[in-house]
Amino acid sequence: MSIQSLKPIFEAENIAIVGASKDPGKAAHQIQKRMIKQGFKGRLFPVNPREKEILGLPCYPSVADIKERLDLIVICVPARAVLSVMRQAADREDIKGAVIISAGFAETGIPQQAELQQEIVEVARAAKIRVFGPNCIGVINTRISLNTTFSPGCDALPGDIGYFTQSGALGGSLIMLALDQPYPLGYSKWAHVGNMCDVNNLEILEYYGQDPEVKVIAGYMEGVPNGRELMILADRITRKKPVLLLKVGRTDIGSKATFSHTGTLSGSDKIYDAAFAQSGIVRVNTVDELIYSAKALSMAPYPAGNRVCIITEAGGPGIIAMDELGSDKSVRLAPVTEKTQEAIKEALPPMAMVCKPNGYIDMTAAAMEKEHMDTLRLVLDDPNVDSAILISLPPTFLPAEKLAQEIAGVIKEYKKPVMVCFMKGEPMLAARAYLEEAGIPTFDTPAQASRALINMTKAAARLDFQGSGFSDVGKAAGKAHQLVEGAAKEMRNLLEPEAIKLLSDYGLRMYPHFLVNSREEAVKAAKEIGFPVVLKIVSPQIIHKSEYKGVRLNLKNEEEVAGSYDSLVGHIKTAAPEAEIKGVLAAPFVTEGIEVIVGMIRDPQFGPVVMFGSGGIMVEVFQDVSFRVAPFSKEAALQMIKETKISQVLKGIRGEEPKDIDSLANLLAKIGDVAVDNPMISEMDLNPVLVLEKGVTVLDARVIIGE
Amino acid sequence: MSIQSLKPIFEAENIAIVGASKDPGKAAHQIQKRMIKQGFKGRLFPVNPREKEILGLPCYPSVADIKERLDLIVICVPARAVLSVMRQAADREDIKGAVIISAGFAETGIPQQAELQQEIVEVARAAKIRVFGPNCIGVINTRISLNTTFSPGCDALPGDIGYFTQSGALGGSLIMLALDQPYPLGYSKWAHVGNMCDVNNLEILEYYGQDPEVKVIAGYMEGVPNGRELMILADRITRKKPVLLLKVGRTDIGSKATFSHTGTLSGSDKIYDAAFAQSGIVRVNTVDELIYSAKALSMAPYPAGNRVCIITEAGGPGIIAMDELGSDKSVRLAPVTEKTQEAIKEALPPMAMVCKPNGYIDMTAAAMEKEHMDTLRLVLDDPNVDSAILISLPPTFLPAEKLAQEIAGVIKEYKKPVMVCFMKGEPMLAARAYLEEAGIPTFDTPAQASRALINMTKAAARLDFQGSGFSDVGKAAGKAHQLVEGAAKEMRNLLEPEAIKLLSDYGLRMYPHFLVNSREEAVKAAKEIGFPVVLKIVSPQIIHKSEYKGVRLNLKNEEEVAGSYDSLVGHIKTAAPEAEIKGVLAAPFVTEGIEVIVGMIRDPQFGPVVMFGSGGIMVEVFQDVSFRVAPFSKEAALQMIKETKISQVLKGIRGEEPKDIDSLANLLAKIGDVAVDNPMISEMDLNPVLVLEKGVTVLDARVIIGE
Repeated sequence: MSIQSLKPIFEAENIAIVGASKDPGKAAHQIQKRMIKQGFKGRLFPVNPREKEILGLPCYPSVADIKERLDLIVICVPARAVLSVMRQAADREDIKGAVIISAGFAETGIPQQAELQQEIVEVARAAKIRVFGPNCIGVINTRISLNTTFSPGCDALPGDIGYFTQSGALGGSLIMLALDQPYPLGYSKWAHVGNMCDVNNLEILEYYGQDPEVKVIAGYMEGVPNGRELMILADRITRKKPVLLLKVGRTDIGSKATFSHTGTLSGSDKIYDAAFAQSGIVRVNTVDELIYSAKALSMAPYPAGNRVCIITEAGGPGIIAMDELGSDKSVRLAPVTEKTQEAIKEALPPMAMVCKPNGYIDMTAAAMEKEHMDTLRLVLDDPNVDSAILISLPPTFLPAEKLAQEIAGVIKEYKKPVMVCFMKGEPMLAARAYLEEAGIPTFDTPAQASRALINMTKAAARLDFQGSGFSDVGKAAGKAHQLVEGAAKEMRNLLEPEAIKLLSDYGLRMYPHFLVNSREEAVKAAKEIGFPVVLKIVSPQIIHKSEYKGVRLNLKNEEEVAGSYDSLVGHIKTAAPEAEIKGVLAAPFVTEGIEVIVGMIRDPQFGPVVMFGSGGIMVEVFQDVSFRVAPFSKEAALQMIKETKISQVLKGIRGEEPKDIDSLANLLAKIGDVAVDNPMISEMDLNPVLVLEKGVTVLDARVIIGE
Repeated sequence: MSIQSLKPIFEAENIAIVGASKDPGKAAHQIQKRMIKQGFKGRLFPVNPREKEILGLPCYPSVADIKERLDLIVICVPARAVLSVMRQAADREDIKGAVIISAGFAETGIPQQAELQQEIVEVARAAKIRVFGPNCIGVINTRISLNTTFSPGCDALPGDIGYFTQSGALGGSLIMLALDQPYPLGYSKWAHVGNMCDVNNLEILEYYGQDPEVKVIAGYMEGVPNGRELMILADRITRKKPVLLLKVGRTDIGSKATFSHTGTLSGSDKIYDAAFAQSGIVRVNTVDELIYSAKALSMAPYPAGNRVCIITEAGGPGIIAMDELGSDKSVRLAPVTEKTQEAIKEALPPMAMVCKPNGYIDMTAAAMEKEHMDTLRLVLDDPNVDSAILISLPPTFLPAEKLAQEIAGVIKEYKKPVMVCFMKGEPMLAARAYLEEAGIPTFDTPAQASRALINMTKAAARLDFQGSGFSDVGKAAGKAHQLVEGAAKEMRNLLEPEAIKLLSDYGLRMYPHFLVNSREEAVKAAKEIGFPVVLKIVSPQIIHKSEYKGVRLNLKNEEEVAGSYDSLVGHIKTAAPEAEIKGVLAAPFVTEGIEVIVGMIRDPQFGPVVMFGSGGIMVEVFQDVSFRVAPFSKEAALQMIKETKISQVLKGIRGEEPKDIDSLANLLAKIGDVAVDNPMISEMDLNPVLVLEKGVTVLDARVIIGE
């Protein structure tokens, strides 16, 4: 259904509150009370057959008794009564939306209650009523003072942020944390869709994406059942406005997820990181970070680049800010020009530390108002500075508000973001409130100021993104390969020669190889390939060849090849009598190059995901891996390689020649294409892959067919 | 001087404030005003020749005019007048301490002002007056309402925390952040010693260590000029009470420090981590973390172990808490017993998630008061639980204060720490204040609750530490080795055969080797060693042999040895004509085992530091290294090995036999002893070291003699 179907909910004029009550202990009472208190711009129609009037408004026996047009009903009756209310709403034919506050449906885990929820959905669908909930807190549109929250303290104020939350608890907290800023921070829209029987979080995200009143989108998610849809959507929206997401489940202990059947790579959270980065979402890790980053983005101009200058009055807090900047590669200290440095040195007392290191200015505690103003102006005038952090301890006997006013005057002259951290706790709140009212974000700690600027810089960089993103390529799929279809029909994995053929057909240069069935054929093949060679058993029952000792390495001459052929086949017949031997694969024995691994899995959330990492035992020990959701471009693959530490080795360290990173990127992107085109492939494992000075060699390829 | 010399300052009864003033814009005025307001238990004597009375107290023309005994003078006069005030103080012979608030001394960078500071120190020393400052904020002892801070908002309240700060700015913030907790948090003592012309931070630490009123020590440091003294001191104190330190300069961009002359290992901050861990200091990273961790330690009982149970009412916040726990190895989720699990399942509604994973209980939003109480009791009764985190959203229509009272009742029955996070922002403050007044710490976010518990668990584990620590071994040093003394006299580095001898004399088993001076000797040596062998040039001028191609590897027979001897010597004569060739070292060519590196540097702060890490190019790429300040025990070395990722390989992965970690630990500890015994050695580099199934082999050893 079109996203415009949500508009009658967010912009509702006439709202019925079903289950309205005079009892302050009831949600419906609190909802009605808050809307009246906040001055809802439309009309409210309380519904309760046992009351004539509630909170000064006439009360109706049923929805059917309301003569005026209705846009939205808010349902607060017990679970068992919701279906009949929904039927009455459907009968009216004017209602476009329902917010079902009532709990007691699918979330209980009781089958009958889940069925009841389904019946409600069916009635609503037939009547084209969009449903929030059940078991939800609902919706806020501050412009018209629409607010269906019922907890104390959730008096959201107007602002630029659009927020959606998968947790009602965190949703309420976010409203209160926003109000609790030095100058209360506002939301444009807010939504909690509870059980998501109809409207889901992606639709809310899409709605905010097209809503001109929402400047910054902030969201909280626990899981992403439809990860690819999220990516396609976010890829488009983040080019227009920032999207901040708090996604929990960061560490192993938190996520309990592991990557691949080997169980050694706990990658799931890294996949989220990759998916978010691919689609321009800025991921945050804590509730605080979500709120203060959204604040910064909703107040300050966006930085044109990643060069940050720190201006501080005290060394300690300054270093804390610098530490936090240093923890993220998306920003760097600004290379302040010589000219600016000289001017700052003249403006400050001699003990000031100017640009040691460059981009860091410690004015010392001797800096008074004038020094603050002068330094700020000089820094913001510098063409090499994109943004600044100002850490100040308003001098003991200078009123902080006065300093705030003067600082604000200077900052407002420029189109560069300045994060302000006043270091003196509660007594500074009035000064901070002044700054924030003037649109200048302030922070409790220097680390928060830095972190907010990191997130701003990431979001701003994305706004300039002109390249092709996931929404352009994410859906594309070619035709499945015949070999894959054949193996899928036979419900077996690809044999190694088939895997080689598959990759060759995708334009990847594979090593010369022969499937042989006798010692004579083996020797002939080896001579053709050139010594030394390797022999590998080919059997659909043997996936992990080394576990069965199914490989003979480094065979240097005809005798070794002949002898090894016999011993290999003989050994397998004993060790795996049930295995059907399809032959033996002869291939060159290669040892040069840098060993890496390339893999593909189907993630339950994001579908095909390609993995790249250090090879050998290092992949287990260092977990030096990176991920991309497929498909992706060669440029994205280059970035993916860059994210690993092994990339330093590939670039050539200690005087070694650089390796063919370009071919490797091509391989990674192609594996992504294979995965998208062939949904029957559940997993691929190219291990080892050798990266040479020219080209890459896939030494072993396993292609697993899924259910 | 004995640490008891600080007592007359912290416990001063009669205090002169020199430079007292009626002008509220002066520090002296603010100091006097606050002490009167807070009810200082002793007597104040304002000194100012131009006033008769200030803030209701009689004013004296000079220090000499005060007839009563004086313990402490607080000096607020301009820098130029401080020396004469100090002379007057010295003349009295009763004053034991001075707090010099005045700035304008060494910190200005002006030589005359530094000299003036030195003159003041000399006068004070002669008169046995201990000096805080100059350029300091001074001292607080809340029990007697002694408080020489002059910034608004620094009305510190009584409590258990002893705080010292290297930054006045952060010191003031910490007082205000403490007051800003839901229930104001107090300090026992507080100190800022400014320029540290006399009293330094280590003395403050030592004083707090022996002060029974200080239960928890918290400090802020930017640098540690006397790192070994800090370690020796902290090693003793942390067995009695927790020491939390905020040490800034965490990241490269923040610290700019690099390890060793190779410039590839930025290790300095890792050295701080090692030094703090070796001496039981709990390191924190942010100002917030310092304050809320100190709060937890000053309020809650200490955990007897590291098993944490999370009890939450909402999934999202619960996972955030679990994520944070998962980021640190010092804690783990509690293995709650089957019996407890069953009982909790009965106590909670059916949709509750009980121990999935074990140690994590999601009560769901349906949990009311009784469910909170029952679950808490069952969890705290479980012998497998050492501590708990309770994340709650007080039900919308249940007053939070009431829930807080009941929770507090349960928690106080147990001797286990419970960190409480109420998730609803500002409206929860009253409930949180109730809990904190009852001695139960509360937190703004679930991540903070987890982090506080991690720090508590680390500190508590240390209190049980009975082993021998840095204070026992940190000063020990034997006799320097003759070879080192000899090389030092000749101002040259050790030759490789000398390095081998040195290590052998420390009981380390080295490979068989011969210094040869002809091809015949080389062949004879090779036959004795057994093929294959390696030949290495020996020359004091050639430190990095491979740079000069000064090594011939894998020589398999007599001819290869003879030919390589000639070509090696011939090559070096051409490539490094200035190098004096002392001979050629013949040694076995070994390839088995796991390659690691062992190093030693002298850190400017901590002295000799031993490094261990992955070998080969991996040390550069993965920076998989750990450090210990020498000397240290073999047990500490085992822990040091465990901190690296290569330790997984040493333990044996993928079915490999485990390697001889015990011998490796012995090597590391011995290298520490060599470093301590031989201060002339500035650096050691054992690279590569091969760890075998039995024993370790040092393949190359460089020993550099310092200035």
